[in-house]
Amino acid sequence: MLGIDPGLSRCGYGVVERGRGGALTARACGVIRTPPDDELPHRLATLNRELRALLEEFRPDAVVVERVFFQTNVRTAMSVGQASGLALAAASEAGCDVAQYTANEVKQAVTGYGAASKEQVGRMVQSLLSLAEVPKPVDASDALALALTHHAVHRVTAAAARAAR
Amino acid sequence: MLGIDPGLSRCGYGVVERGRGGALTARACGVIRTPPDDELPHRLATLNRELRALLEEFRPDAVVVERVFFQTNVRTAMSVGQASGLALAAASEAGCDVAQYTANEVKQAVTGYGAASKEQVGRMVQSLLSLAEVPKPVDASDALALALTHHAVHRVTAAAARAAR
Repeated sequence: MLGIDPGLSRCGYGVVERGRGGALTARACGVIRTPPDDELPHRLATLNRELRALLEEFRPDAVVVERVFFQTNVRTAMSVGQASGLALAAASEAGCDVAQYTANEVKQAVTGYGAASKEQVGRMVQSLLSLAEVPKPVDASDALALALTHHAVHRVTAAAARAAR
Repeated sequence: MLGIDPGLSRCGYGVVERGRGGALTARACGVIRTPPDDELPHRLATLNRELRALLEEFRPDAVVVERVFFQTNVRTAMSVGQASGLALAAASEAGCDVAQYTANEVKQAVTGYGAASKEQVGRMVQSLLSLAEVPKPVDASDALALALTHHAVHRVTAAAARAAR
């Protein structure tokens, strides 16, 4: 499961897998950065290449991309939209299932509280993945939270399917 | 020169070349459509594939993508941003020069009037490219107008460089 917090200057990613004992573990997380002084098309091409390299390296079954709204931040809205387009297309081209959740859905799933702070989300990511500290930077932690959200939604869906039988 | 009017449901394209006599001609124009019933990631992957096929077929030296603003149309803003991200990245990856102009810059360059109507732009595209009729649909005509804008800007830049010598 690969979570992606799309952005042009900073694009967070986090890979979460279920270990043999059933516990969720963070296999990798980090941030793809593109130089703000570069031309926009070149930055997007760089981001695209890095995203495809992640898909190639980790071969996730599912990719989870934050669903962004342009109301949030008008200044960066267009570049976040462009980055999310690259992530969604690359994931589909790699044959992955693709899911999208809003920031509020992630907060709700990870902390049980849709208005949780960034810090609260970070601490829950640390706890759920049994990490020694809160993953940094926040883009990487948010990407892990996206992957955890999809795991949680899957678990609930599977439980509901079992209950319905 | 390949012009692209980015969009998810309809993405216009137009290829403009300078013929042996120096006249500009439309080599191709059309619209890439993706089915609204498809999932977003699949639609973006389809658009990406079609854009790369155009770059492969026509091997343009430059690609001109409309510069979009979020303010223009709130409902389609995110998908237009995603589509433009794919176009800009694909053009950069193909080694093309990439330029962006706003709709108003295109109107100004093609008709001499920044508040020109769609119809006026269409008729000027027809005239400048010596076409029997106005190219349809309007997305294709707008894409040709983008390519014509870049030709016009290049001509002015080259004339200014000659004058400065």
